[in-house]
Amino acid sequence: MNEMIRKVIANMEREGLDQILVSSPSSLLYLAGIHVAPGERLCAMVIGTDGICRLYGNRLFALPESGDYELIEYDDTDDSVGVLEKGIKPGKLGIDKFWPGGFAVRLMEKRPDVKLALGSAPVDEARMYKTQDEIRKMKASSLANDRAIEKTMRGLRLGETEADVADRYLKNAKAEGASGNSFDALICFGPNAAEPHHETGMDVLRTGDTVILDVGLLLDGYCSDMTRTCFMGGMTDEQKKIYDIVREANAAGRAMAKPGIPLSEVDRAARDVITAAGYGEYFLHRTGHGIGLQVHEPPDVSASSKDIIIKPGMCFSVEPGIYLKGKFGVRIEDLVAITEDGAETLNELPREPLIF
Amino acid sequence: MNEMIRKVIANMEREGLDQILVSSPSSLLYLAGIHVAPGERLCAMVIGTDGICRLYGNRLFALPESGDYELIEYDDTDDSVGVLEKGIKPGKLGIDKFWPGGFAVRLMEKRPDVKLALGSAPVDEARMYKTQDEIRKMKASSLANDRAIEKTMRGLRLGETEADVADRYLKNAKAEGASGNSFDALICFGPNAAEPHHETGMDVLRTGDTVILDVGLLLDGYCSDMTRTCFMGGMTDEQKKIYDIVREANAAGRAMAKPGIPLSEVDRAARDVITAAGYGEYFLHRTGHGIGLQVHEPPDVSASSKDIIIKPGMCFSVEPGIYLKGKFGVRIEDLVAITEDGAETLNELPREPLIF
Repeated sequence: MNEMIRKVIANMEREGLDQILVSSPSSLLYLAGIHVAPGERLCAMVIGTDGICRLYGNRLFALPESGDYELIEYDDTDDSVGVLEKGIKPGKLGIDKFWPGGFAVRLMEKRPDVKLALGSAPVDEARMYKTQDEIRKMKASSLANDRAIEKTMRGLRLGETEADVADRYLKNAKAEGASGNSFDALICFGPNAAEPHHETGMDVLRTGDTVILDVGLLLDGYCSDMTRTCFMGGMTDEQKKIYDIVREANAAGRAMAKPGIPLSEVDRAARDVITAAGYGEYFLHRTGHGIGLQVHEPPDVSASSKDIIIKPGMCFSVEPGIYLKGKFGVRIEDLVAITEDGAETLNELPREPLIF
Repeated sequence: MNEMIRKVIANMEREGLDQILVSSPSSLLYLAGIHVAPGERLCAMVIGTDGICRLYGNRLFALPESGDYELIEYDDTDDSVGVLEKGIKPGKLGIDKFWPGGFAVRLMEKRPDVKLALGSAPVDEARMYKTQDEIRKMKASSLANDRAIEKTMRGLRLGETEADVADRYLKNAKAEGASGNSFDALICFGPNAAEPHHETGMDVLRTGDTVILDVGLLLDGYCSDMTRTCFMGGMTDEQKKIYDIVREANAAGRAMAKPGIPLSEVDRAARDVITAAGYGEYFLHRTGHGIGLQVHEPPDVSASSKDIIIKPGMCFSVEPGIYLKGKFGVRIEDLVAITEDGAETLNELPREPLIF
């Protein structure tokens, strides 16, 4: 049994879960180095506190044999849930929060003696505290992202589309060795920057536009994620004012990130700056999210994380923003990794306002 | 209420489901033209046979108002399942097969008076029979894919990597107007072509290699998906023999595709050709899958589809293959759309063996 599975079993015992089912590809990668994209087919690892660990997957996935688990394969003509249920003991089964509901319903129908419960916490908790080796990879991913976004921003040209900029970013990311985006690059021009979840589209860059670039890449399996906001041709007084407030909120959030503090305080610190400046109602989202093998993973950096105490090894984003509908928006995002006595900011690209 | 929701409600009545929860982004696109990528946040439409239709989503998604549904938004600080459960009636609730299990467990904990059941069939069935307008879009997507794969194959150069070819394909697809891949291009050189689920990687193209290109693009929301196999520098007698068997299997599968026949017969027709030639054990997967707004959707073209009778409007792939481990593999895939009296093959690119 490897170190990661051992950590998960210790967490299961603390949570009172005898058996859990893990299906998220990123968790299978974390637990056993397995790369799998199961699509609509079933792929899951069942872990018991008795140390029995079984991996179920379609023969097409060509899953590797390993001393860490017993491999149980099925074919497209088999009833995959029928194969799985033979390995589930009566009683409580903690399931992965992303396990497709259709499998869950079919398992419940076959096995009324099994009671499904939330079962992601043991793996999420293990993944939440990165090892030194993982933090090294996170840092490398973020530094590559710094270079890719800088090159992309310096190449901004009037008349190009948001999609053009996203394509250039991906090319720059790959030139840094990235295997791809950690999420689809979010590029917002002008009033689109006032929509935090705008979709990168065919709008054209114009003088006076605010440009938000929210981008991340995947390097050696680990995600980066950062946002910079820049301005085409100059900044109005209002743009300057909003930018400075957001930059101060970003710094306040990062400064609050240290061991022993409730994670909600990071959200509060960033939010207080924006609220004090009179823009609280225009900060439309949580301050950040955990990140690692996936671009969004626990913990949530929001008011709801009062009971989560910051500890060394946590990695999360600090990304306050102000969104003025119909006009423009500003967001500045960096990743931090918690150390023994504070936090290291994984991004080194300056946060001065950039005008092109 | 629009035509699609009306079709779904008729299917619900036939299936004995009073209320269903729809969460797959492609189904929300189908039902209400909604583009959403909810990530780990809850986004779902609850449809009742009483005609009440509610869409639940995070305010960040900026979901549009519509006469087709009541929009109910929540914030990151709200309990999303708590907001959702207020709209669920006691009794059976059919859930989307892809609805994340964590939401399902939380709903069951809050609402012991609600019994979850499989609830994808009413929407899947509606989506399975494409309208004339949808088939026109499927055809356009496949013809663009024909051109993109042909250009990519003709550009094959010794020494380039599988990843290079995938990048070129995507560029060619975008030049055809595609918004992107319908799935990550699967490019397999030499012995990699013997693994049906190989991951496109850094292996280099060499003389004598078999090359499988399994690619699809997204045009106007609709997916294409096709496979061609070509050969670098020449074909051995064994490659010729295997290619001819697979081509014959592809033609036999497509010829069997017509209204009134069980869908499993398409699988059988293709498989019989390969089995009769003595390679049955090397055809490692089902013959095909439904396709539309998603690259894989019901129905399955496999032995398990005995009860699914082919009807006009169905679109699916026919993609037999033979995989000789350690040596090479051949797969030839086309899409068909079922007409009133037969099937139209959506791909027009010839299936002659190509040698570069």
